[in-house]
Amino acid sequence: MNGAQKLLESLLQLGVDTCFTNPGTSEMQFVAALEREPRMRGVLALFEGVATGAADGYARIAGKPASTLLHLGPGLGNGFANLHNARRARVPIINIVGDHATYHRAYDAPLTSDIEAVAAAVSSWVRTSRAAGEIASDIADAFIAATTAPGSIATLVVPTDVAWGPAGGSQVPPVQVPVAAAPTKDAVAAIARILRAGEPAALLMNGAALSAPGLALAGKVHAATGARLLSDFFITLKARGAGRVDVTPVAYPVDQALQQLADLRHIITIGTVAPVAFFAYPGFPSAMAPEQCRVHSLAAPGEDLVAALAALVDALDADAVPVVAGDLVIAPLPDGALTPEAIGGALAHLMPENAIVVNEAVSGAVPIPTLTRHARPHDWMDVTGGSVGGGLPLALGAAIAAPERRVIALEGDGSAMYTMQALWSMVREGCNVSVVLFNNRGYSILRWELGKIAPDGAGARADAVLDLGNPDMDWVSIATGLGMPACRATSAGEFNTALARSLATPGPTLIEAIL
Amino acid sequence: MNGAQKLLESLLQLGVDTCFTNPGTSEMQFVAALEREPRMRGVLALFEGVATGAADGYARIAGKPASTLLHLGPGLGNGFANLHNARRARVPIINIVGDHATYHRAYDAPLTSDIEAVAAAVSSWVRTSRAAGEIASDIADAFIAATTAPGSIATLVVPTDVAWGPAGGSQVPPVQVPVAAAPTKDAVAAIARILRAGEPAALLMNGAALSAPGLALAGKVHAATGARLLSDFFITLKARGAGRVDVTPVAYPVDQALQQLADLRHIITIGTVAPVAFFAYPGFPSAMAPEQCRVHSLAAPGEDLVAALAALVDALDADAVPVVAGDLVIAPLPDGALTPEAIGGALAHLMPENAIVVNEAVSGAVPIPTLTRHARPHDWMDVTGGSVGGGLPLALGAAIAAPERRVIALEGDGSAMYTMQALWSMVREGCNVSVVLFNNRGYSILRWELGKIAPDGAGARADAVLDLGNPDMDWVSIATGLGMPACRATSAGEFNTALARSLATPGPTLIEAIL
Repeated sequence: MNGAQKLLESLLQLGVDTCFTNPGTSEMQFVAALEREPRMRGVLALFEGVATGAADGYARIAGKPASTLLHLGPGLGNGFANLHNARRARVPIINIVGDHATYHRAYDAPLTSDIEAVAAAVSSWVRTSRAAGEIASDIADAFIAATTAPGSIATLVVPTDVAWGPAGGSQVPPVQVPVAAAPTKDAVAAIARILRAGEPAALLMNGAALSAPGLALAGKVHAATGARLLSDFFITLKARGAGRVDVTPVAYPVDQALQQLADLRHIITIGTVAPVAFFAYPGFPSAMAPEQCRVHSLAAPGEDLVAALAALVDALDADAVPVVAGDLVIAPLPDGALTPEAIGGALAHLMPENAIVVNEAVSGAVPIPTLTRHARPHDWMDVTGGSVGGGLPLALGAAIAAPERRVIALEGDGSAMYTMQALWSMVREGCNVSVVLFNNRGYSILRWELGKIAPDGAGARADAVLDLGNPDMDWVSIATGLGMPACRATSAGEFNTALARSLATPGPTLIEAIL
Repeated sequence: MNGAQKLLESLLQLGVDTCFTNPGTSEMQFVAALEREPRMRGVLALFEGVATGAADGYARIAGKPASTLLHLGPGLGNGFANLHNARRARVPIINIVGDHATYHRAYDAPLTSDIEAVAAAVSSWVRTSRAAGEIASDIADAFIAATTAPGSIATLVVPTDVAWGPAGGSQVPPVQVPVAAAPTKDAVAAIARILRAGEPAALLMNGAALSAPGLALAGKVHAATGARLLSDFFITLKARGAGRVDVTPVAYPVDQALQQLADLRHIITIGTVAPVAFFAYPGFPSAMAPEQCRVHSLAAPGEDLVAALAALVDALDADAVPVVAGDLVIAPLPDGALTPEAIGGALAHLMPENAIVVNEAVSGAVPIPTLTRHARPHDWMDVTGGSVGGGLPLALGAAIAAPERRVIALEGDGSAMYTMQALWSMVREGCNVSVVLFNNRGYSILRWELGKIAPDGAGARADAVLDLGNPDMDWVSIATGLGMPACRATSAGEFNTALARSLATPGPTLIEAIL
């Protein structure tokens, strides 16, 4: 057994059975090893950012890491932006990067670059494997690093000669992943005292606190103390819809966020940190909590968030308090013009139970969360690191993790353009994804940002780098070219029909919504 | 004048008048500044790898740097692979990366990452600007770093508050770019002695040595001494066709390269280094020069290569030696099946004088150089760093640098998929590019590489990550969706007609060649 075969075997032994890859010559040993290992599912991406973003989406839904397989420094570079998003999502990924043979590096062949330096900027753990006989223990260490709560990226660089070298009798050592701690009784009691005191307070949550059980507990805290329930603007995964306790994201626009938090005296963080502005603006603060507000951590991202909420409910004696969860309200299908509101209405009406919504429609999606609050229960994920191009890959990964669930990807035209190669992989893998492409022919969010710094209105030259018309993109044509069935909707009625058909059809489809 | 305006002014003062960008919120000050500065051409790319690859292509043809404008660490990450290619091409680029406000970094907002670490892996010079008043001198230093021969990437990170801060009366200081040195008379004389001794020798060249004047001088050395004329496998820019002295690339397959160089006793490097294998393989050496061969540097990449060749011609007293350059031979147009050979024949027949060929058709392009050796004089460029996805962006940048010339992009289906967003920018900018898309529905080069390590033939599972059918890509549809006129050719006759029409039509077109 060579190093590459041992690597696959080791991953499988730890339950990692999916590999998102865009391989090159330095990864050929792994491709050959895949041939002999039917338990490992290799998913081909035509661009590395698709592979890394899919590994993120997979981890969010499967609750365990996938592996990637990338081609030297440039392959890692292409995957960097979505690894950045995954890092911010605090999900586990085992990133495998092929490299030149150890003895070949000194020759500075054209594809040589400083892989470890780039990897370090997105990884909690980076190692270059030294010998095939060490790969099993390298993978064990990578697995521990990646899956230690709250989850992070472990990058193992594997030189080709390590991949082709003999792994001997090496085995995966016993793996002990540290159990996530719950906060101490005293810490919980202190938070309970603050909440009982009745000053304006909010829970600010992310991670598993936004799971259905987490939110149910948070709902009890809210019912017992009046504390508001907030989440970060971008969340990793959130349970929503009928039967779920509602949580409000901190607003993206700084002035709105400041207003939203203005009355608070206490923010209790659970699986996140104190709220900060996404970007800095002249005359506005970076910290969003008002001056008189104190930020208390109930549980850091790496702690057991649901246990922390359960302990808080206990300390508040709130277990029997009735919780307000959303009713199921299926409003009639919208008609008239096709607007973001009409799309939200159609989703609220048609979205099947247990759907997974991936949101990267940016400004186009603004009204959708409110409109789908009472839809059938579903999960929602954002592009957590703010690097556009995460949405379609996340949807691909989520669909592979949960083939029985319907994934709905809300995509802006600008965002989709970064990683549209994901459409091809969705077709190839038969993923149940409905892509709703919001075509508004512009970087609308950037026009809004430009308006803030140039309030007299930007002119034609500035707009020329924000406008996505000239030429207009035809997403039906692009999707069809990538093998995906696609149609166009220009009215609410057309959109309703198209969405209903897409949701009822196995495999992926794309609906281009002309806004 | 704020920092962003001062940055544009400073670039313009140094002759940098083209900016390839995919901006985000942290770059809005620059977008606003663009509005007021009609002398700066802003070229929008829908993915950062298009912007960086276009800056590379631009520099190769314009002989001066363009600037990029990228959005924080993830934007730089998306641009990394083509910056890697540009680094290997040894071309000048001034890379501008927007960052959070200096005081905002401590808050670790979602888009925060270690930009300098990633930049350092591809740049010869990295700096984070500290104040708007220093931007003019930062740009001067970046310009000197980028344009000092042989050319490299200088990355300036600009925090938003530096971009919006007052630049005061700061000015670009006097800029003195070191002049590239020519080798000493003694060094040249030593090389001349080696060549005169008559042992088997070759000149191995890259950079300006492959320009028409460089090759003409090399041709005299060959004629006078019998030294063979070789180039690196991947070259930055090479003059080819009728009237040009021919140079043979060192082969990509290691066994072929070893055979090609086996008889040599001396390799004289001019603008490059000793030949190395692109990848390492078990049982094959990394260095391609045979054991008995000595490698001598006539001129390192940063030296004046044409002057070095001229001095060598002088030392050899070879100025009057007649040089063998290619004749113009226009073979008849091919007919029959559409093959790479048929494409090469059509190019040889139809390619206009002074065309720029960008080659990223990988295995599909193998016969093309030989077939176009006697075509009308043209220039040729490769994706120098070996990171796929360089071709279409290079063609975009070349076309913007030389709007009067026809650019012909030879693209593999697999390669084109990485950065197909470039097609949209070509349409938007009215670039005179003919894209020839070699659709063979597979990563053929990787199948060949896999065959080398698994000679018994790879099976279906391995091939599943190398096969680009399932679903088939329809490049006419993809290109049309991105606004580019496109057609399909399935026979040599169809291809001839399509190519002739494309070459005669202003603006870009794509021809999907079904192989």
